[in-house]
Amino acid sequence: MRITVDEAHMLVQRVMTANQHSVEYARIIADHIVDCELRGLGYGGLARVVSIVERLQRTGAPTRPVEVAHQTPVSARLSGNDNLGYVVAFKAAEIVIEKAQAAGLAMVGADGTWYTGMLSLYAEMAAAKGLITMIASNATPWVAPHGAAEGRFGTNPICFGFPSSADPVIWDIGTSSIMHAEVVLAKRHGHMLEAGRAFDSQGRPTTDPEAALAGAFTPWGGHKGSGLGHVVQMLGILAGSPVQPPELAEFGFVIVAMKPDLMMPEGDYRARVTEYAEAVRAARPIEGGPAVRMPFDRSAAERRRRLAEDAIDVPDFVHARLTEFALS
Amino acid sequence: MRITVDEAHMLVQRVMTANQHSVEYARIIADHIVDCELRGLGYGGLARVVSIVERLQRTGAPTRPVEVAHQTPVSARLSGNDNLGYVVAFKAAEIVIEKAQAAGLAMVGADGTWYTGMLSLYAEMAAAKGLITMIASNATPWVAPHGAAEGRFGTNPICFGFPSSADPVIWDIGTSSIMHAEVVLAKRHGHMLEAGRAFDSQGRPTTDPEAALAGAFTPWGGHKGSGLGHVVQMLGILAGSPVQPPELAEFGFVIVAMKPDLMMPEGDYRARVTEYAEAVRAARPIEGGPAVRMPFDRSAAERRRRLAEDAIDVPDFVHARLTEFALS
Repeated sequence: MRITVDEAHMLVQRVMTANQHSVEYARIIADHIVDCELRGLGYGGLARVVSIVERLQRTGAPTRPVEVAHQTPVSARLSGNDNLGYVVAFKAAEIVIEKAQAAGLAMVGADGTWYTGMLSLYAEMAAAKGLITMIASNATPWVAPHGAAEGRFGTNPICFGFPSSADPVIWDIGTSSIMHAEVVLAKRHGHMLEAGRAFDSQGRPTTDPEAALAGAFTPWGGHKGSGLGHVVQMLGILAGSPVQPPELAEFGFVIVAMKPDLMMPEGDYRARVTEYAEAVRAARPIEGGPAVRMPFDRSAAERRRRLAEDAIDVPDFVHARLTEFALS
Repeated sequence: MRITVDEAHMLVQRVMTANQHSVEYARIIADHIVDCELRGLGYGGLARVVSIVERLQRTGAPTRPVEVAHQTPVSARLSGNDNLGYVVAFKAAEIVIEKAQAAGLAMVGADGTWYTGMLSLYAEMAAAKGLITMIASNATPWVAPHGAAEGRFGTNPICFGFPSSADPVIWDIGTSSIMHAEVVLAKRHGHMLEAGRAFDSQGRPTTDPEAALAGAFTPWGGHKGSGLGHVVQMLGILAGSPVQPPELAEFGFVIVAMKPDLMMPEGDYRARVTEYAEAVRAARPIEGGPAVRMPFDRSAAERRRRLAEDAIDVPDFVHARLTEFALS
């Protein structure tokens, strides 16, 4: 079915408050979920809220808010206290922005979290304030390093964001060959995975999503991409995540923010990023191919289009379950 | 032919002093070149010195040393003044280490440089002092972004380094599908490139190294890898590199260093990185495959072996040219 942006937002907010979340936290989560939908990243949208509630039903809702455990003028370490990553990372982003604006450079790490969502959202918050960011988030070891047939690191997204004089440039990728949410969806729908994406619990290649969830996914990008998965895991460990986090808990999150004026006036930097992005978009495409895009171009265009339509498509069964959750 | 480590070092040092470099700078360059050879990265070793001298003969040697143009407690911006990247990046690493040890976190950027070499060398310097690093270096737009058939970013290496209680973990990759030095070598030897690695100046796929050098290489890792190439280019721009640097000049270099104790005691962090690395090495390999390695394992083992042998193999024609350069 099709609902308005406000209806989607209100639905998520009601589900989260019905699950012992404060209105403040429920709003942060709803903003994130709705932004995923607007950007066309459905796996992280309303369907994801079903997985969130299932996790909360299994473990109980967090009983303490996100807390600052330690800080310096250039850093903070947060205790996530098992709050959803959408909230923990949002709080981390707010703090790193404030500190980087004051000191020029800052890092915030957080532990005790899960599902950190689209890292690009936090990069966009910082870019709006003129800051460059590097963001990483580790996870349960669902992914086998290159050459291995069992999991050691998570699906481990990493993101860099840059302010420009137009839309920011944001690169945000996962370091596994397939997303956890995609595998969960394939299982829900009874679909098989593509070959080469996963091992079963015995280390044998599999295309069965259920077997993959009990085994491990393959990394993205072979040997080089696998190394980036390690990088994210070690940044998560820095934030306080255990070497091998348990199922859907105790993830780590790290955000580093840099003020361009450490190097040049912010306006000059924004203009040069724009100039670079324009030069890329104007590059000759490969024979018969479409125009060249910069990272984030598609997300930004999708969001503008859907906001103008004021419409979000949601599968009926997802809408029905969320409505039920909101009333419980 | 086969020479000792000291002979290799002295040869490079003599070549560089014969080319108007101070003994200090010549030593920094020789250390870097010899470390490439010891780690088995021949393309960046003695053969690279031939390319360095050819560049200096074309442009003249730099007339000013590396200078600090601007600094804050957490940052410095260096003017490379057309000095070789091996020197500029080494100076940047020294400064970022000092600042990060004092402030917890620091960033140094440098412009006006070329050939920054193995970024892992700077990560290793910082890891020896207990620091985590992120390092990037942009270049002449030899590489076509994903979907494009002409160059917009450089071969753009990026590197992350982590201290452990044993060897550091260092991930250091190029974001192009082939290294510039490999293409130059293929041209020198009259070899063709693998298919899919390059376009000619008209945007047509080519396997001819000469045509590739006049055109563009393809990026590593498709759409995701290409985005990382953009990230490095925009970090280079931050350091003062132009949006599209000219041939083998005006590259940018950025290094960010983080002290683990912003998040936890350094010893605890080192121990956890070691524990993680050991868990990865102990992972079940894929059916019939070798033991799983961590990034830097092979480099570290190669270096130990060659140091024990005290022997570096150098092609006769490279040795002859360097000897000639040293005497000129």
